[in-house]
Parts: sequence; C-alpha cells; structure tokens
Amino acid sequence: MTTRHMSLGAFIMSSGHHLAAWRHPRAWAGGGLNFQHFKQLAQTAERGKFDAIFFADNLALMGTPELGQYTTAGDVFDPLVLLSGLATVTERIGLISTVSTSYNEPYLLARKFASLDHLSDGRSGWNLVTSATDLEALNFGREQHFEHDDRYQRAEEFIDVVTGLWDSYEDDAFVRDKASGTFFEAEKLHVLGHKGQHYRVRGPLNIPRPPQGYPVLIQAGSSEPGKALAARTAEVVFTAQQTLANAQAFYADVKGRLAGYGRTPDQLRVMPGISPVIGSSQDEADEKYQQLQDLLDPRVGLGLLAGMAGGFDLSGYDLDGPLPELPVSNSMQSRQALFIELARRENLSIRQLYLKIAGARGHHTVIGTPKTVADTLEQWFVEQGADGFNIMPPFLPEGLHDFVDGVVPILQQRGLFRREYSGTTLREHLGLQRPSNRYSA
Amino acid sequence: MTTRHMSLGAFIMSSGHHLAAWRHPRAWAGGGLNFQHFKQLAQTAERGKFDAIFFADNLALMGTPELGQYTTAGDVFDPLVLLSGLATVTERIGLISTVSTSYNEPYLLARKFASLDHLSDGRSGWNLVTSATDLEALNFGREQHFEHDDRYQRAEEFIDVVTGLWDSYEDDAFVRDKASGTFFEAEKLHVLGHKGQHYRVRGPLNIPRPPQGYPVLIQAGSSEPGKALAARTAEVVFTAQQTLANAQAFYADVKGRLAGYGRTPDQLRVMPGISPVIGSSQDEADEKYQQLQDLLDPRVGLGLLAGMAGGFDLSGYDLDGPLPELPVSNSMQSRQALFIELARRENLSIRQLYLKIAGARGHHTVIGTPKTVADTLEQWFVEQGADGFNIMPPFLPEGLHDFVDGVVPILQQRGLFRREYSGTTLREHLGLQRPSNRYSA
Repeated sequence: MTTRHMSLGAFIMSSGHHLAAWRHPRAWAGGGLNFQHFKQLAQTAERGKFDAIFFADNLALMGTPELGQYTTAGDVFDPLVLLSGLATVTERIGLISTVSTSYNEPYLLARKFASLDHLSDGRSGWNLVTSATDLEALNFGREQHFEHDDRYQRAEEFIDVVTGLWDSYEDDAFVRDKASGTFFEAEKLHVLGHKGQHYRVRGPLNIPRPPQGYPVLIQAGSSEPGKALAARTAEVVFTAQQTLANAQAFYADVKGRLAGYGRTPDQLRVMPGISPVIGSSQDEADEKYQQLQDLLDPRVGLGLLAGMAGGFDLSGYDLDGPLPELPVSNSMQSRQALFIELARRENLSIRQLYLKIAGARGHHTVIGTPKTVADTLEQWFVEQGADGFNIMPPFLPEGLHDFVDGVVPILQQRGLFRREYSGTTLREHLGLQRPSNRYSA
Repeated sequence: MTTRHMSLGAFIMSSGHHLAAWRHPRAWAGGGLNFQHFKQLAQTAERGKFDAIFFADNLALMGTPELGQYTTAGDVFDPLVLLSGLATVTERIGLISTVSTSYNEPYLLARKFASLDHLSDGRSGWNLVTSATDLEALNFGREQHFEHDDRYQRAEEFIDVVTGLWDSYEDDAFVRDKASGTFFEAEKLHVLGHKGQHYRVRGPLNIPRPPQGYPVLIQAGSSEPGKALAARTAEVVFTAQQTLANAQAFYADVKGRLAGYGRTPDQLRVMPGISPVIGSSQDEADEKYQQLQDLLDPRVGLGLLAGMAGGFDLSGYDLDGPLPELPVSNSMQSRQALFIELARRENLSIRQLYLKIAGARGHHTVIGTPKTVADTLEQWFVEQGADGFNIMPPFLPEGLHDFVDGVVPILQQRGLFRREYSGTTLREHLGLQRPSNRYSA
C-alpha cells in the first residue's frame, strides 16, 4: 500500500445496534429474517467501499423470555447461511461471520469457511469467539459453559486444527487432468493427524485450500488470554473502547505483543467498534439519539445489564441509585470491567448506565454531523488508537446510508479511505498477506 | 392435488454421477467449486419444474489419497453453504441438503435449516443420514464410527430434538409491535428442555419457526432401523432399487409401515434414484455410456467397491474372477446387500460389478432415448414402485439438459408431471402438509 488507509467494517444487527432500534418509526422492524433487507445493506456497504460486512452470533436466545420479548434477539439468521446468500449478490466486499469455537467441531467449521471462501472468491473472514454464557451451554448438553481460561485453551488448539485442515492440499494440488485421469496430485495432499488435549482430528479436509489460503482470522476477546491468542493468531482485532486514551493503550498493548510471536505490527489490524448517530446538524443528531433513548423500555435496559453481569439480577435495586458491587463474571470479563469502570468514572445510576450502553453495548458512540464523525475517526486513526473501525449503525437502513453518503466521502477527500477497491479479496482490502501452506517448499 | 403427479429431484454431484464423469470431454471438470456452474444447473432444473435440487455429503475425503486422486471426492462444497447461495438465485425450486446426525449438534443443525428455510421462503429440505465410515469418525475425535443400530437410535432422538426446537415459537409469536414495544409474545415461546439418552438441549431456538413449519424431512436409509425411522418421521424416502420388482417391494414395505405410526400413505413420498443416459437414438445413448465406462480407471472402480464393502480390499483378487464372500459391513448394510445380490444374480466378475455400479453406485441406470427414459419412469410410477425419482445425471451439464429438454416435455404431455409450479414451498411441490406446532391449540 502506498498510502495507509483506514479499514471499515459494517457491523450489521437486525434492526440496528441500539436496543430500541426496531421501534424507531423509520427502522426495519422485521429486518432480522428479510434477505432483501440484508442484500440492500450489503450492497450499500459495498457502494461505500467498506472492507467487509460483519455479523455477530449467539447460540441461544439471550436473556429470559420475559425480557427477550421486547428485543429482536429471537429473530436472527445463522450468519454463515446469511453470508453464503450475500456472497452471491455482492462482488467485492468481505464477508465476516462470528462463529464460536466452544460448541463447534473444527472439521465442520474449517469446511464451512473454506466453502464460503471459494463461494465468494476469497472474501470470507472468521471472527473467532468463545461461548460465554450458561444459556448457550445448556443447548449443547452442558450445565455450565467452559471456564474462561479453559475456553481460550480450547480455542488455541481449535485454531491450530482449523488452519492445519485448510493446508490439507497445497495450492497447486488440483490439476484436474482429463487425459491422465489424475484429479489431484496425491503427494500434495497432507493428512493432519492432530491428537491434542481437546481435539483429535485426522483430516484431510475434503475441499481444496481456500482462495485466501486461510479466511481472514478475526478476534474480539480483550481479556489477557484473549489478547495472547490474538497476538499469536489474529489478523484483525475488534474491540470496545470508550475513550481514545483507552484505545491507544489497547492498540499499543496488542501491537507490542506481536514481536513475541515473530510477527510484525502490520500483520494485525486493530478495529474498535464505533456507533455513529448522524444528523445534518448537531441538534438533529442529538434529537435522533434522544428519540432512540426514549423508546428504550427499562426492562430491556435491565436485561442488558444482567447479560453483561453474568446473569446478575439488578431488578431489586433502585434504578436511580448507584451500581452495586458485582461478583466477577466467568463470561464476559473484559466487557464487564469496561462498564463498571464507566459507571464509576461518570458516577452513573443504574438507569444512566443502561441508557449509556444501550446504543452500542460498550462501544464508543459518536453523535454529530458527518464531519464530527469523520473527525473522530481521523483522530483515533492518526493518533494510533485504531487501524480502522467496525461501524455500528444505530438503526437500519438509515444509519448505514447516513455513514456511506455522509462520512465516507469526507474520509475519501482527506485521503483516509479508498475511493475504489484495489484488490478482490478481503485480505487484499485489509492489506494482509496470503499465508503460505505449511507443507509447501 | 387433482391429478397425481410424480416428484422429481435433481441430484447434483460435481461433474456428474458417473465416477469417470469429470474425464468426459464435454463435462465440467472443475465443477465442484464453481458457483456459476451450480447456478446454471439449479436454474436449469427450475426451468424443468423439478421439485428440488439435492446434494449428498461426506465428512471426510472418502477412500485413500492414492485412489481419491483419480476422483472428484476432494472437490466439494459444504452443501448448506452452497444451497444458501443457490437460494438467492432461484425462486421456486426446493433445496435439499444431506446432513449427518452423527457429528452435528442438533441445536446448530436446527438453526441452520431454519435459516435456510427463511432465506428461501420455505424451500428447504433436510436429508437425514448417519455417518457410516471410520474415515468420518476419525475427523471427529473417534477411532470408529458409531455402530449401525446405535447410529439410528441417536438419529431417532436427534430428529425429535430438532423438530422440538423448530416449534420453539408458535407461528404467530412474532408481532413486532413498535407501539407497545412487544417484539414477540412470551407466552408463545416454548422451552424444549430435552433430556434424553444422547442429547440434552434446553432451547429455545433463536429464530422463528420455519416458513414450512419444519423443513421437509428426507431419509435414505433402507436397512431395518432405517425403514423404521423413515416410517415414523420421513416425508420423502430416497432409495436405490435395481429392478421394478424390488422397488415395488420396498414401496409396499415402507408405505405399509406408516399406519403403525398413525400416518397415511400420502404423507411419505418414495423416490428411487434413476441415472438416465440419454441419446437421440438408442445407439447414441449406448455410445455415450460406453464412452464413460471406457474412461473409468480400474483403480477408481476398486476404490468404489472397497468403499461399499466397508473398506474391504479387493485388490488381491482376480479382476475377472467372481466376487469373494465379504464380511458384513457395519457401515452401509443395505447398499452392500444390494450390490452382492446384483453380482450373484447376474454372475458378474469384480470388473463387471464395478463397471455396473460406477455410473450410479447401485441406483438404476436407464440408457436410451428420452422416450425410453420416460417410459421407465411412467411404469415405475404407475405400477407403484415410486412416487417420483431422484434424477442422477451421468455427467454435467449435459446430462441435466438432456433430461429437462428431452424427458420432462414427454412426462408433461402424458400428464405425469407439472407444467408450472402451483405452490411456492417445497412442501407444496411435494403435496405434503405443513406440520402444526405441537404447542398450538
């Protein structure tokens, strides 16, 4: 790359990221399962030259039915199914799906992502997460989810198995020679034969090596083992950072760990989430944000806090009083710490806290004009808080359109973002090298 | 339905069903991972008004690398990824994917098929199989695959969990009422709470009930426990039958079992596989078939027999001598019996046997003009050997085009097959009722 550009992901959640998004008069309320909606959003992001669209995932209906009924939580596609559909109606944009290592088989996961990478001609990315709630464990024959550190040990091994399976065939193994009858060259096929602590997987995979070598590896964990895993294996790290100072500290921390694994800083892109609430004036943006806040049912807000506090029930406490001391959660340690710190720093009541994070669940919210948003992104990017951003529209489709039509042109004018795709694969968009096959000379 | 029509599935394998298909001069040799190929095939089948396209699946590279290198076995998409892509470029045709119960989690499978059913507006079908080879087991942490009867016990429970999860929400649970803030009605959400011998799955699923209620349930097992499972739960049975008499016996057997489960014969469609090799004259068809046979490498033929004999190696035997006695296989019992019976009945040598089944692996092959093929289908259909057929083109794309342009018009003229789709879902194409939700009044 001659110029250093920021990377942009479009993080799409059914009606938008604000918990009250679906109630907004202009939001798509049945957006969770309408493929035409997602098609339009993906094509809009592609028009905006985004590096990728990004989908989260949960393996359970989060929260209780009593609280879930006021949210869109039960109305989501399996992201790999959705992205496989979107691959065929887009041409350049990357396709990132979250998939947990905790309750998946590495062979199945390796094969699905290899398939998506072939289907999309090299545009897939895998956001590796570990499942963090008992609600998910209960859907997979377990009473409790795996302990935090155990989850990451399993993830470490899981990723080694998956990359090993992707290397089953060398890149030029498949000759498909009709005359001789040789379809692939057997000496370029490699049997993994993995026998580890958590997994035994023989291989080989029954699909050629992905066009990208490996689909792009993304991680979002910000705990200590999460950062260690990222430093060893991730190529993109998504993270929630409330302030530039925190973002800079995180950025320096993760980048500084790379050398310990023989890697260079350009081999990993740090991308905080940013939720932009955009208006043609500051007043209009403020009003838009307030309208969403006013639509938030307190039951939904309390459900959000309970989910982030490992199920800890705050409903017995005064909504307008301070946040009580909370037990350390076994699930989302870094996110829990983030919102406790936020409440203490800004002296927030329970109500103020859930209103504060209802828009972006701990990610940084920017409310203002396109220029305001562009200024923030530029500052974080230039001052080494980020290599790019995962953009979290507050409600859809408007929030994405606002960004593509308002913010992207400003970033392009400032030379901070591409005007056209220069490559065809997600790796090329992100400026990441294609990994060589471990068995090739 | 006023008239009884036959059902037709288009069973697509990468370059075609004949093991030498990919070597045919007019075949797509790199067809396994070219989405544009599959798109054209799916749209061709839809032009032919097929009920569905159908994909098989294996969770390993079947056979040895030494023999696999002469086949397309290592060059296949994950079928659910592929069908998710095809859902967006077709409008009416059903989308059937094989997925094994042996190494999948019921929660993940239920969610993926529900997602595909929503993505396609009710066109998905699940061909339930059990994994039958040690090669697959070794990719999932096991030394050996599950015993035959154990596989079916697990499948019985698996299917109950999956249908239970699909019923998590009643059909009208999601009201998405912006004014009140109620997204779904909590009393129409049901927690499965399954605790069985093999699976413990709490639920609920985090996706609304599929448009079809349940995706269409297909099975292919023809063993005793396979037929029992089909009689209780299947809506379509695929089967390999070499002769009309055998097909009639199988048809009567499976249909006769339904009453024992409180079901009626019209609740299950029996669809044998048929591989048609079509020419404008009998000579042309014969030549086409012979051309494929001549392209078959003996190593591929022996690999096929070894795969069907549970890995039993025949390479030490005289290719032109008789088939030796074989140990009973723990994997594909009914298919093994079928080909042994075929060899004995027709007094075939080892070479003659593999040549006989290389085209369709035990399914009935019809070689002739479009009229010849239509006559066979009509006879099997009218004389109660079949409710429809899974059509297995010998090589692609020609084999499918031959059928759609040659055979389908004859079937339509005879009133045996639809001229236009009358419904929009796979269930409607097949004349199957939409299952009600177990929790609804």
